[in-house]
Amino acid sequence: MEKLKKYVSVKDEDQFYHQGAVELLVFNFLLILTILTIWLFKTHRFRFLHETGGAMLYGLVMGLIIRYATKASDAESGIVYECEKLKSGPSTLLINITNQVYEYQYKREISHHNVNGHQGNAMLQKMTFDPSIFFNILLPPIIFHAGYSLKKRHFFRNLGSILTYAFLGTAISCIVIGLIMYGFVKAMVHIGQLKGWEFHFTDCLFFGSLMSATDPVTVLAIFHELHVDTDLYTLLFGESVLNDAVAIVLTYSISIYSPKENPNAFDAAAFFQSVGNFLGIFAGSFAMGSSYAVVTALISFMHLTKFTKLCEFPMLETGLFFLLSWSAFLSAEAAGLTGIVAVLFCGVTQAHYTYNNLSPDSKTRTKQLFEFMNFLAENVIFCYMGLALFTFQNHIFNPLFIFGAFVAVFVARACNIYPLSFLLNLGRKQKIPRNFQHMMMFSGLRGAIAFALAIRDTESQPKQMMFTTALLIVFFTVWVFGGGTTPMLTWLQIRVGVDPDEDLKTEASSQSATNLDKNTTKAESAWLFRIWYGFDHKYLKPILTHTGPPLTTTLPEWCNPVARLLTSPSAYGDQLKDDDTDYIINNDELTGNYESSAPTPVPAQDRTGSTQAKGKEDICEGDLGLGGYKLQLEHTAGQPQMTSLA
Amino acid sequence: MEKLKKYVSVKDEDQFYHQGAVELLVFNFLLILTILTIWLFKTHRFRFLHETGGAMLYGLVMGLIIRYATKASDAESGIVYECEKLKSGPSTLLINITNQVYEYQYKREISHHNVNGHQGNAMLQKMTFDPSIFFNILLPPIIFHAGYSLKKRHFFRNLGSILTYAFLGTAISCIVIGLIMYGFVKAMVHIGQLKGWEFHFTDCLFFGSLMSATDPVTVLAIFHELHVDTDLYTLLFGESVLNDAVAIVLTYSISIYSPKENPNAFDAAAFFQSVGNFLGIFAGSFAMGSSYAVVTALISFMHLTKFTKLCEFPMLETGLFFLLSWSAFLSAEAAGLTGIVAVLFCGVTQAHYTYNNLSPDSKTRTKQLFEFMNFLAENVIFCYMGLALFTFQNHIFNPLFIFGAFVAVFVARACNIYPLSFLLNLGRKQKIPRNFQHMMMFSGLRGAIAFALAIRDTESQPKQMMFTTALLIVFFTVWVFGGGTTPMLTWLQIRVGVDPDEDLKTEASSQSATNLDKNTTKAESAWLFRIWYGFDHKYLKPILTHTGPPLTTTLPEWCNPVARLLTSPSAYGDQLKDDDTDYIINNDELTGNYESSAPTPVPAQDRTGSTQAKGKEDICEGDLGLGGYKLQLEHTAGQPQMTSLA
Repeated sequence: MEKLKKYVSVKDEDQFYHQGAVELLVFNFLLILTILTIWLFKTHRFRFLHETGGAMLYGLVMGLIIRYATKASDAESGIVYECEKLKSGPSTLLINITNQVYEYQYKREISHHNVNGHQGNAMLQKMTFDPSIFFNILLPPIIFHAGYSLKKRHFFRNLGSILTYAFLGTAISCIVIGLIMYGFVKAMVHIGQLKGWEFHFTDCLFFGSLMSATDPVTVLAIFHELHVDTDLYTLLFGESVLNDAVAIVLTYSISIYSPKENPNAFDAAAFFQSVGNFLGIFAGSFAMGSSYAVVTALISFMHLTKFTKLCEFPMLETGLFFLLSWSAFLSAEAAGLTGIVAVLFCGVTQAHYTYNNLSPDSKTRTKQLFEFMNFLAENVIFCYMGLALFTFQNHIFNPLFIFGAFVAVFVARACNIYPLSFLLNLGRKQKIPRNFQHMMMFSGLRGAIAFALAIRDTESQPKQMMFTTALLIVFFTVWVFGGGTTPMLTWLQIRVGVDPDEDLKTEASSQSATNLDKNTTKAESAWLFRIWYGFDHKYLKPILTHTGPPLTTTLPEWCNPVARLLTSPSAYGDQLKDDDTDYIINNDELTGNYESSAPTPVPAQDRTGSTQAKGKEDICEGDLGLGGYKLQLEHTAGQPQMTSLA
Repeated sequence: MEKLKKYVSVKDEDQFYHQGAVELLVFNFLLILTILTIWLFKTHRFRFLHETGGAMLYGLVMGLIIRYATKASDAESGIVYECEKLKSGPSTLLINITNQVYEYQYKREISHHNVNGHQGNAMLQKMTFDPSIFFNILLPPIIFHAGYSLKKRHFFRNLGSILTYAFLGTAISCIVIGLIMYGFVKAMVHIGQLKGWEFHFTDCLFFGSLMSATDPVTVLAIFHELHVDTDLYTLLFGESVLNDAVAIVLTYSISIYSPKENPNAFDAAAFFQSVGNFLGIFAGSFAMGSSYAVVTALISFMHLTKFTKLCEFPMLETGLFFLLSWSAFLSAEAAGLTGIVAVLFCGVTQAHYTYNNLSPDSKTRTKQLFEFMNFLAENVIFCYMGLALFTFQNHIFNPLFIFGAFVAVFVARACNIYPLSFLLNLGRKQKIPRNFQHMMMFSGLRGAIAFALAIRDTESQPKQMMFTTALLIVFFTVWVFGGGTTPMLTWLQIRVGVDPDEDLKTEASSQSATNLDKNTTKAESAWLFRIWYGFDHKYLKPILTHTGPPLTTTLPEWCNPVARLLTSPSAYGDQLKDDDTDYIINNDELTGNYESSAPTPVPAQDRTGSTQAKGKEDICEGDLGLGGYKLQLEHTAGQPQMTSLA
């Protein structure tokens, strides 16, 4: 007995010791393989398979091996036990088995039809990790990075179009997919499939909303490498970033839409409640994310007190930046809002304000840190997608549904891009040309977000079928569309090799040459954004950062005492300094870091550019009254390597 | 029914959605508070409470709040259910409760006496996270960082002493604590405590081994800030890093020591098996760790093929470096070895070889990345220690045992430091002075490793008592000894404000002035290490890095074809270049980054220093035949800011 107990305890400790090591090693191995492959591809300038596609492929192979090379090891696999005394499922279950108490942790409710023999395969089970890991660990860095590296200048130039595509486009896409799928589901019911399933129109809309999240990570990486036309790049990037947020909140709103009586009939009250939910959650998450960023900006800006500035301790600064940004996500989640949306707007706000207060060292640190986390998280997700095809245990492949989904996704993308582009072109000075529209249509890849939304709920059979279908659409779009990006660019004759700053400059100088008034540049941005921009530049920037004009000049006279108190002493020194445009340039270089060969001299440029690169910001500000020559000079000054050309 | 189901599913999703957000937010909040406090302390040059002490304090307060402000929410708390049909505990348990199947995940075996009413307090349960998180997530970055930032030059000068303290010292400490505790346990049994407990001598030794892991993170941080004598710093740092590894393997070896018959009698076979286990695991982990580092070095060195060098893609390089280092840990764990030990030696080897092959950008990236991870992980652990005092549910406070442990820990530290220092001084040219010995005695703090080892097994009552006691000793030593470091340094008259390079230089020049032969400098390093050093410099460095002499000059003539194939073309260009010493200097600066105010110009110095800083390495090599003047010049050349003084 004594010996037996010893043995058991040793065995337990051993298990405990190695818990998780093997499956993590599998992922590490896959990622290492992916990195080596990317390296190989990069040296051969091979662009048909992007790293994400490669990661997915390796995941697929590994999933195949795990699925068919390991077998159920647990004798109890798939047996359901009865327990009359229990009335509900407690979070912790203590069970007495042969005089030894075992502690069990509640995992999930499981439908009878999901109980199968694979339940006991420890390897399979370990490899299919908790979907909440996606939402709590892997997605936040990706989304934050997207927000933090948003090209603000081009983004604001195209803000109207981006918002239209993101909000209206996603809604259109969701409804179109929902309608088409509802038709297919009706047909499936008609021919006798889906017997005994509950499949309402709301389920179709749910599928529509999750399939509306586009993730053109592959496309954008290639765009970046080839320096594709900046406006196209910005439109796609902006659309995909915001559209993720919209799709996530939309999916959540639809999932909690509960009509009072007949689930198939339209219930106006419930519908408006859903719309209200959507708006409330979106606005709440936005507020939560930006307020954390504002707090970070304020802390990093603190110079009024007797404290040493935080920026003298880059490590503490980076730590605080990281923790507060993560807190934005967690607070939103804890408050019942959407963390991903919060973290996106937190990233945008951090880049807009806090970034200006950071020490040069912290600027590099934060950028590199989030870039690295983004890189790892992205590849883990794509590896996992490959794995999931074989390790997920309740796939339901329904050819008709899959066919319907493919049709729906493409039709919906077309209904999103073409009509909206037509409408936008009515108002835009600089039209979105036909080939851009085709390219945007082609770039409707589905990726991490669609997958994460689909895997979050795979309990009922309709949801399982949706998950399987979503996975297949992700595979298809990433491999086929992702791989076809370069040929498509050539075929559509979209110009490549564009320097984004050069682009803006020539445009600006050509405009000033023809003496257009200052509104032309801002043709697209509505008055609302101009007002916001002015307010931001005059009041928010001086309060939250060391940049912008001193408050004493922007606030009314009677506010002078308050203004004097709030104004950074350095603001008096060099007025109107704005680090913002730097960020845009540097970030460009940074993102290219693992693509281009030259190491980036970021801190150096930070310093030289900070006081001189004002001109570019001014274009966005609409103060283009200085004529072409000065502008061109200032642009060149912003890029030290070109000074000799000026 | 329909509605009820909907409701349940929504509630489930909600729970699911916010899972983990609140507890992570608590940790984030604690860390933010800690960072702000450190910042405050740093500006006021307040050194009595180090950041780790602060983190612990905040954790303690938070634990108090969670313990007494939340209550058991689960009705089923503490009820044990019977299930006759189950014969053993399966890893996944499916239970049918009121016609709904629930899936439960095996968590642990639990003793009857551990079942209590707090079992159902969801908040308490969430805050006490899985101990395997310590070993798999939090400790590896800390230990890797320690290995990666080992000051190699001073480390090798004191290698003999460090190894003696780490191996012999830890063994002495373990045995002394074990013996003293065995006496106390006997006394406790005598007065009627510990009734019905099994408490063998091996358990006392187990406690001894886990309490032997010193973690002077607080002390070293203060040493670093004050620039305390480099030899003392190196002795303490080297001892604590290696001693962690030894203590971990020792604890594991003792825990699997299983005498055949009477557990109290001495079993020679089992004892030697334990010794064999210790040696095997230590050597195996060492081999595993270094081989992964060698693989990384080889990949990053690849220049023989037609591939572009990896160092042209800093992101891929950093990713590969990170993943391979982590794989060293995971492989060791999966193979039944000790991951922490593997990752330590992986770090040392990475710094020795791979670091030289990295691009300047990757050098900064990897250092900053691991520094950041170390910073976060350390503060999380110390916060958690504070929390654990109130949130851990099975504390056993036994005053006699606690008193005994305090006595034992200090006696053991004294038995470790003083006799070994005496013995070492017999052989050392440069004696370890009395005040250094007192300071080392005083710096015997217990920290993260002791805690992690103690929390890994808290199933039986003796282990719970040990955990409680270990936690109290950690609190006491970190706060009292950590806080008393600065006064103690003053009181012992240990010189501060020493520049480590300056130190070495004056020493070198004074030696050359008195015309001592080259062996004097290396007085301490035994012939074994000199042979290793020669081998490393002549063969390993040229094969694995771009540094060192070309192989064609070091290998015998008949090996020339092989040598030519293996030699890096750049090695012919500047012979004997060695980036190694740079690393030591830069790292020094880097660690100080969040302590000192000036941003470090690391990459710049990397470039200037690489070809010129050869002199320092040579001191270690024992080739000190060039006279004092040249050496001094070269040292100065290695530090660009001092060139004007030369």
